[in-house]
Amino acid sequence: MDLSTVMTPSSIALVGASTRDHTIGHDLLHKLVDYGYKGKLFLVNPKGGTIEGRSVYKSVAELPDGIDLAIIVINAKFVLDTVDLCKEKGIKGLVVISAGFKETGAAGRELEEALAEKVRKYGMTLVGPNCLGVVNTNPDVSMDGCFAESLPRRGDIGFVSQSGALGGGILNILKDLGIGFAQFISIGNQAHVNAASAISYWEDVPDVKQILLYMESILDPAEFRRLATRVSKKKPILALKAGRSAAGASAASSHTGSLAGADKAADALLRQSGVIREKSLKDLFSSAKAFSLCPLPKGDRIAIITNSGGPAIMATDAVEDFGMKMAKLSDETKEKLRSFLPPAASVKNPVDMIASAPLEHYRKTLETVLADDGVDMVLTIYLPFLGLKDTDVADTIMDIRAAHPEKPIVGVFMTKQEFFSSLSDKRVTVPFYMYSEEGVAALDRLNRQRIWVNRPEGKVPAFEVARDRADAVFKAAAADGRETLTTSESISVLDAYGIRTCRSDLARTEDEAVAIADRIGYPVVMKMTSKTISHKTDVGGVRVGIASAEQLRREYRDLLSKLTERGLEKGLEGVLIQEMVKGSREMVCGLATDPQYGPMIMFGLGGVFVEVLKDVAFRVAPLTDQDAREMVRSIRAWKLLEGVRGMTPAHTDRIEETLLRLSQLVKDFPAVSELDINPLIVSDKDGEPIAVDARIKMKR
Amino acid sequence: MDLSTVMTPSSIALVGASTRDHTIGHDLLHKLVDYGYKGKLFLVNPKGGTIEGRSVYKSVAELPDGIDLAIIVINAKFVLDTVDLCKEKGIKGLVVISAGFKETGAAGRELEEALAEKVRKYGMTLVGPNCLGVVNTNPDVSMDGCFAESLPRRGDIGFVSQSGALGGGILNILKDLGIGFAQFISIGNQAHVNAASAISYWEDVPDVKQILLYMESILDPAEFRRLATRVSKKKPILALKAGRSAAGASAASSHTGSLAGADKAADALLRQSGVIREKSLKDLFSSAKAFSLCPLPKGDRIAIITNSGGPAIMATDAVEDFGMKMAKLSDETKEKLRSFLPPAASVKNPVDMIASAPLEHYRKTLETVLADDGVDMVLTIYLPFLGLKDTDVADTIMDIRAAHPEKPIVGVFMTKQEFFSSLSDKRVTVPFYMYSEEGVAALDRLNRQRIWVNRPEGKVPAFEVARDRADAVFKAAAADGRETLTTSESISVLDAYGIRTCRSDLARTEDEAVAIADRIGYPVVMKMTSKTISHKTDVGGVRVGIASAEQLRREYRDLLSKLTERGLEKGLEGVLIQEMVKGSREMVCGLATDPQYGPMIMFGLGGVFVEVLKDVAFRVAPLTDQDAREMVRSIRAWKLLEGVRGMTPAHTDRIEETLLRLSQLVKDFPAVSELDINPLIVSDKDGEPIAVDARIKMKR
Repeated sequence: MDLSTVMTPSSIALVGASTRDHTIGHDLLHKLVDYGYKGKLFLVNPKGGTIEGRSVYKSVAELPDGIDLAIIVINAKFVLDTVDLCKEKGIKGLVVISAGFKETGAAGRELEEALAEKVRKYGMTLVGPNCLGVVNTNPDVSMDGCFAESLPRRGDIGFVSQSGALGGGILNILKDLGIGFAQFISIGNQAHVNAASAISYWEDVPDVKQILLYMESILDPAEFRRLATRVSKKKPILALKAGRSAAGASAASSHTGSLAGADKAADALLRQSGVIREKSLKDLFSSAKAFSLCPLPKGDRIAIITNSGGPAIMATDAVEDFGMKMAKLSDETKEKLRSFLPPAASVKNPVDMIASAPLEHYRKTLETVLADDGVDMVLTIYLPFLGLKDTDVADTIMDIRAAHPEKPIVGVFMTKQEFFSSLSDKRVTVPFYMYSEEGVAALDRLNRQRIWVNRPEGKVPAFEVARDRADAVFKAAAADGRETLTTSESISVLDAYGIRTCRSDLARTEDEAVAIADRIGYPVVMKMTSKTISHKTDVGGVRVGIASAEQLRREYRDLLSKLTERGLEKGLEGVLIQEMVKGSREMVCGLATDPQYGPMIMFGLGGVFVEVLKDVAFRVAPLTDQDAREMVRSIRAWKLLEGVRGMTPAHTDRIEETLLRLSQLVKDFPAVSELDINPLIVSDKDGEPIAVDARIKMKR
Repeated sequence: MDLSTVMTPSSIALVGASTRDHTIGHDLLHKLVDYGYKGKLFLVNPKGGTIEGRSVYKSVAELPDGIDLAIIVINAKFVLDTVDLCKEKGIKGLVVISAGFKETGAAGRELEEALAEKVRKYGMTLVGPNCLGVVNTNPDVSMDGCFAESLPRRGDIGFVSQSGALGGGILNILKDLGIGFAQFISIGNQAHVNAASAISYWEDVPDVKQILLYMESILDPAEFRRLATRVSKKKPILALKAGRSAAGASAASSHTGSLAGADKAADALLRQSGVIREKSLKDLFSSAKAFSLCPLPKGDRIAIITNSGGPAIMATDAVEDFGMKMAKLSDETKEKLRSFLPPAASVKNPVDMIASAPLEHYRKTLETVLADDGVDMVLTIYLPFLGLKDTDVADTIMDIRAAHPEKPIVGVFMTKQEFFSSLSDKRVTVPFYMYSEEGVAALDRLNRQRIWVNRPEGKVPAFEVARDRADAVFKAAAADGRETLTTSESISVLDAYGIRTCRSDLARTEDEAVAIADRIGYPVVMKMTSKTISHKTDVGGVRVGIASAEQLRREYRDLLSKLTERGLEKGLEGVLIQEMVKGSREMVCGLATDPQYGPMIMFGLGGVFVEVLKDVAFRVAPLTDQDAREMVRSIRAWKLLEGVRGMTPAHTDRIEETLLRLSQLVKDFPAVSELDINPLIVSDKDGEPIAVDARIKMKR
């Protein structure tokens, strides 16, 4: 796949060029011409003749050799043959705008698969089908091969849209907001080129400085993750992924499974890949504007300069909401500010220059605050005041920006829409927003990108494990035709993978039980283990706090008689004798499989709180050490692990290791579809996480 | 106080009218004249003469009698005397725009207090000082007495702003967005008229249909609550309350106190008063637009109509985020839609008419969906498509709106800014937004107002309590000079107020302890109680699970010897013998005092989770039964109270009663500043909430 043949073609054949108004073939021709495409343009239409003075080839077969790109806008049924002809002519790039493929049902899907296969066989690169086209605003190329309303505006964004209609709408809005882009690819049905291909291609395209994605689904999540993780360290990637609430999570029998809602996997994948996920188009555009016009900050300390208290209070609120810091201005800075600001002004952050602040105060205050080493970013607020024009203040800020390119500066101008419209016609060097929260949100995105860029690259560690031992357990269960492992089987799989489980052993007789308990040490827990009765507590099969051999014998006999009463004694495999782990912190971890994104690892607060508080974090497998570290710290109950009220701090390294070992387990045994460790008790004694109960389910 | 003299004056004296450009006295004169004030206007300036052909009175003393309102824009130091003159002339209303009062320090504060006292003594009504002025757009009045940029636009909003500068900025933006208002009051320093006065006045002003507030502080919270609770049932009240993060919560020794952050009280107060709190100006404006143009819905079921999938997916996400429902269309509706929409369209909600949908499909689909009884509100999405103009679609929607006034209809038009600018010049009857989330947020506000209007009016119940008994305990502590009550004192206060505490009694000797335990029944807990050692666990003063008299004697002797070893035996008041309450659900409730808003009641998840998960809800006292009901249901752990995994459901009525009794306690004893019941254990046996440990602190 080579997207450069599509995005920087020296020559294009427009297959399906048309004279008829309001046809795509006609509009596209005009857009290519009007936007001033720099290469050679060939038109193809079976009718031949000329269109607006350009001669028309009757067939691709008649075209000269060596054309780079064919943009195809003919009926779907003719597309396959046309691709064959393109191949013969040496055309390497294809943009199939035509609809009538996968989106129309089974026949269309077949047609699309045939198209994709051909393209792969021929070594071509295909954008589409059922797409809007492609745009490259680089003046060396000047290609508007896109079936959308506005002529594109030059900028630094590489933009991929999955939805055609919405992609067009977005282009319109971007233009309206004065945000330009470098390249646009409407991937449509993604038969060949998808978001990951675009990310990979743009990695080394110098005029693409940031990447925007609109996605409804992520094809090949592993490939997307691999590429996005790398490229996002160089260029910010912002994504709007719709379909968050699209329920549809299949009924799951495990906690992990039932908590792994439709969107958890996509959210985790984007986070692990360093992609900044936006929840709305508005935020997407706001952030893009900030990345276009600001450097990355060195830290998260924000100074606010204002001529009115109210918006500064709102901005301060937003800074705290986003978890960033209000900069503490140095005494030197404050003294300097005091030297020229009126006595009623406040020289603490936020610096309130009061309503009457003239241009000169904006200039000096901004310069003074920028010079403070304790300030990483500056938000400048302007509220209309008689005698001070918004455009003049904006110009002043932009002047200072030019002299101080090292720190991000953002403007919040609570003024008329007119001001923003006027900006879109001139060259702006500072992002301006109407409201305080928007300005602070923009700074938050810069800060998040800074954190991501500085984040250590994660490694997927390889632990030495007793894989054979786990394999044997799985095979035995499979031989039995069982999907769900028994507790003791599950525990022994975890044990084989080096996860600290509570000491336990399976006893088949009363005497064996006593022998095991003697070895483990009292108090112990006795749990019935069975291949046919999966919910042990429902049949009274769990006895805790057994303090002596005598008590153990009594409980064993009681259990047996209870089972016999109910006729369940045949299902009994034996009893598991377990050490009794003391710990007030019950966590949960586990594994669920998303139909699209594959296995995910979960960690969170366990016990009765699992479903109630849903204080859990998900990450897509394989997990890196960095992923594990972050997910453990991301739950609300993290402070509990650090230890409150004199608790022993949890051994968090060991918790992270547990998660990483689970990740290795599912890599080695992809047939594992669900796994719960609940509870994973943090020992009160030494903070060690111990898997006390576990349940593993296999794919059929 | 009578705001009508200020807001609907038949005559105005502008005191400080000026000929000099760029003075407030000059600008105000022009604004009053240009906006066409309908009453008589008198100008006052010591220089006399004429200003633009109008004769100028040299002093208020020279004015004719019977003028309604004086707008004062003179130096602060002359204001008091001027008010005296106004009084003599029978002027009842004052708007003091002049600055130089409370905001400047101690001297200004004194001046302002003198002004307020005079106004009260004279029975006048004062807006300001240090404010922007007042506006009434009613054509019978046409008063623009406001020192802001734009001439106001007529609408149905009553708007109060605390910040002058921001108020002006907001007026500008409102005008720009095409949102008009009926009246505007800039309350400035709120020496007399404040937000509550405006709310009260607007209750019966027919052309004010909704009330918007920008506040930084709420003066007289009780009065605000009383008025807002009543008026918000008739007219929506929307508030932007800035200063959420303004930390500053004084160091508190209780859990409740430390969780009661700066903003908890304001948030609770607004919620209890039925005020819809907005987090940003943008949301404030969006919501106001919706309330201006939509009826309240009958339910929360939303239908979405679209010509593009992407924005509909985003809207569906937002509907779920806001906790509303996607309407289930009836078979009849679907059949009807299928009869005219193309086969590729989706007739399920969201109804996707596909990109090529003509005007006629918008019309028929909207009408069909509106006719479905299962639909309460409709969101109509338009994405630009060749051949279909946004303004035509908007007109179509507005036509249908006129024929179907009973259900809210909102438009999401992802089109150019131009479209929105053009709307602001014409009469719109449907609110249009650019993005899906904005449209859904607007529907959410309508839905919240619906819920509030239908919410039963709460009552503050009066319980029969043993007030004397509690009083005696407080008096004894006060006599001792103690601020903090002992555990047994705290428990007996709760008991006096009818709160179920765990059965317990104080023993001063070993034999007494055994006698009490025999009465309560084993197992029991023994807790040291002391006036000098407040943290019992630190000295090993709590012994749980005492199963027999023998064990109790052993533990008692051990405690005594441990205390003696440390020389702490003198502080020992005795030991509390308590029933041992078994319950896995540990809740917390309590009371904290906000310096501005007074006592607040808290409820939430207790035990080690209190500070970690902060899953708590606050309400301002006094609590109504409805408040108690809602706060118990508002915590994340609510499901735990309902009962999961076979737990006994908690007796939530009794939890609510506990909170209401606490509210009564602090009403009867305002000296109680902090109170913690932690844990409030929900008994596993019968779901009864039992106060197991408590701590009460008094104001000095």
